[in-house]
Amino acid sequence: MASITAVSPLAPGSFPDLPIVDGVAFSTVAAGVRYQGRDDVMLAKLIPGTTIAGVFTTSATRSAPVLDCQAKLGVTPQDGAAFLVNSGNSNAFTGRNGVDAVDAIAHATAKACDIPQERVFTSSTGVIGEPLPFEKITSHLDTLSATTTPDGIQAAAQAIMTTDTFAKGAGVTVQTKDGPVTIAGIAKGSGMIAPDMATMLVYIFTDAVISQPQLQELVARHNAKTFNCITVDSDTSTSDTLLMAATGASGIDVSDDAAFSQAVHDVMQTLAHLVVRDGEGATKFVEINVTGAASDADAKIHALSVANSPLVKTAIAGEDPNWGRVVMAIGKSGAAADRDLLSIRFGDVLVAEKGWVSAGYDEAKAAAHMKGQTLSIGVDIGLGNGAATVWTCDLTHGYIDINADYRS
Amino acid sequence: MASITAVSPLAPGSFPDLPIVDGVAFSTVAAGVRYQGRDDVMLAKLIPGTTIAGVFTTSATRSAPVLDCQAKLGVTPQDGAAFLVNSGNSNAFTGRNGVDAVDAIAHATAKACDIPQERVFTSSTGVIGEPLPFEKITSHLDTLSATTTPDGIQAAAQAIMTTDTFAKGAGVTVQTKDGPVTIAGIAKGSGMIAPDMATMLVYIFTDAVISQPQLQELVARHNAKTFNCITVDSDTSTSDTLLMAATGASGIDVSDDAAFSQAVHDVMQTLAHLVVRDGEGATKFVEINVTGAASDADAKIHALSVANSPLVKTAIAGEDPNWGRVVMAIGKSGAAADRDLLSIRFGDVLVAEKGWVSAGYDEAKAAAHMKGQTLSIGVDIGLGNGAATVWTCDLTHGYIDINADYRS
Repeated sequence: MASITAVSPLAPGSFPDLPIVDGVAFSTVAAGVRYQGRDDVMLAKLIPGTTIAGVFTTSATRSAPVLDCQAKLGVTPQDGAAFLVNSGNSNAFTGRNGVDAVDAIAHATAKACDIPQERVFTSSTGVIGEPLPFEKITSHLDTLSATTTPDGIQAAAQAIMTTDTFAKGAGVTVQTKDGPVTIAGIAKGSGMIAPDMATMLVYIFTDAVISQPQLQELVARHNAKTFNCITVDSDTSTSDTLLMAATGASGIDVSDDAAFSQAVHDVMQTLAHLVVRDGEGATKFVEINVTGAASDADAKIHALSVANSPLVKTAIAGEDPNWGRVVMAIGKSGAAADRDLLSIRFGDVLVAEKGWVSAGYDEAKAAAHMKGQTLSIGVDIGLGNGAATVWTCDLTHGYIDINADYRS
Repeated sequence: MASITAVSPLAPGSFPDLPIVDGVAFSTVAAGVRYQGRDDVMLAKLIPGTTIAGVFTTSATRSAPVLDCQAKLGVTPQDGAAFLVNSGNSNAFTGRNGVDAVDAIAHATAKACDIPQERVFTSSTGVIGEPLPFEKITSHLDTLSATTTPDGIQAAAQAIMTTDTFAKGAGVTVQTKDGPVTIAGIAKGSGMIAPDMATMLVYIFTDAVISQPQLQELVARHNAKTFNCITVDSDTSTSDTLLMAATGASGIDVSDDAAFSQAVHDVMQTLAHLVVRDGEGATKFVEINVTGAASDADAKIHALSVANSPLVKTAIAGEDPNWGRVVMAIGKSGAAADRDLLSIRFGDVLVAEKGWVSAGYDEAKAAAHMKGQTLSIGVDIGLGNGAATVWTCDLTHGYIDINADYRS
């Protein structure tokens, strides 16, 4: 089972050097919720005035922590706030016990951090359907609150991992029209990844000043083009949560600042790509570009149909430029297509056009592209101007190894 | 790669002893379309007066033979008819060449059998996107036409196989209110199996008398509950075709005969189950029953979401009674559900009820059920009276082995 513990071949060389975000501090602890010998709980403390936006799974069976977070987004930000996250147990499908666990953890966090319980956002990730031993967490809250540090974000990224093979972070110092602000974010996610919000846990921090409605709009808009455009296995988590906190500590107002918006997008896209790069069993990172669809919505349906097709994903694992399976996936998607107008590229190689293999197609060139670690598949539908880009990975023996045994 | 050539562990012991259907005769030949050393073309000749019904893939990229069959269903049956099927090349996504190949094969079949070309139904299954070397087929038509035999259906079932590991047949002699009629059918299908029609090739024959509109209605109605309720991998073929021919040779009119309708259903369900039992890499046959949904349509959406979930399918492969993944699949399906009303069974074992693990749950019993070759998963949504049953298989290393290398 080396494939479970080995770091993904698509992992970056190291955790990035993230900027310090004024107004947030982190701590972690080994609470032993499920994993032994590693930190599994992280606290992020946020200063009074921090605005918080979030997007969540749309699953009908979403977890108690998700429902609790959704109810708290509108709370006014005059007080401090906190994110409290555990790995190892998702507290999903745990009935009344789940609600009680969220309440106990939020209460203990509020007390330890001296903030209202309505400003505590909790997440849990791991096994579904088993009771969360919340006392293991609440007993550490005073220590967690007393030991936060502004430079603890890498440890926080490590504490929230489950089947992840590497910690995921992204950040930037962005020059807005009124001066520099920092953005830093972390994510966890590897399996049960399909775009219906974020399908994972993501926390992004900035010291910019921005109102909650504006931050919410920004996060939701960029989410649609980043986390909602990735898929590992078409399965959608019950716990997906993305929270973004703007502490305002820089004093720089970024309302309507284009550079800030772009920087938030870039951090979100980087984190989303890192989740794909840690896709369970992944050996290839694949970008799928669909153009020429009847609408952008149709383009995304086509692109996700290709990205989620087990036959396309296994062909990629086998380094086979199998355009027939791409045709199949376009055909089954339900969005508008005309077989005789399709053209398909693997990388720069035009494989098929107007419904058949391209006249100048060189399979050796396409096969060479498929041997790379980063691939692209382009499909032009030939009907209109709709376009979409999504990202996925291949389907390998590693995915079977991990999921035929891991109780998630 | 033993998993590719070994017979599925879920295969029946032998090909069934099918009744002879008066009015149809079969022949096969080794034309060398792609496979060597085996028959790969089958002809079924049908007597004048035979009515023919069919249902087909709804893929937007469906193949030239499918489009040709669809156009011919309404033709009046005073003449003889023929089915001509090749394996090894699907003649899909082959542009104008594909249309020409269908025309050449249908023309040669019509000439050899002395019937109008409008009564020749062709199918092709195998590689997508490569030109069909139709001369290899047309050169054998005179021989095929001269050598048909009423008891050749097993050889026909073998000739249409691609990644199938066993030939699939089902049949019955049914006592209608006016006397006995026979039904015999064959199918091929193993991967690229998802319900959007039949996702495979199926040919069913009867000597009953029934009008084309009545036969079409019967086939479409039973198809919705049989072939459209199976999935191997959520991928939908470009070539799916089910054709049923009623030769009328028995002289027995089965219009509105309930026993006949039930027998057609049973043959279709048996063939559909055989396709699942030959699912690529399958080691478990799984029935998923959803009850208590808001509607039958919602129940089918939930059931297929469970059946197509890679995480549910790998848990089954790992013999893990992982109800959390079933909850996940219900939650992501898009159909109405309430987490706190769900109950879930593995076999007879009540695993979860009212949103949490059942009080009397015995994991050892559930785990014992998962070790069987034939499993059932029951989900009650708790909202209404909608119900659906679908069938699927597990997702194993065998699926990866087959599809990371096979150019389909």
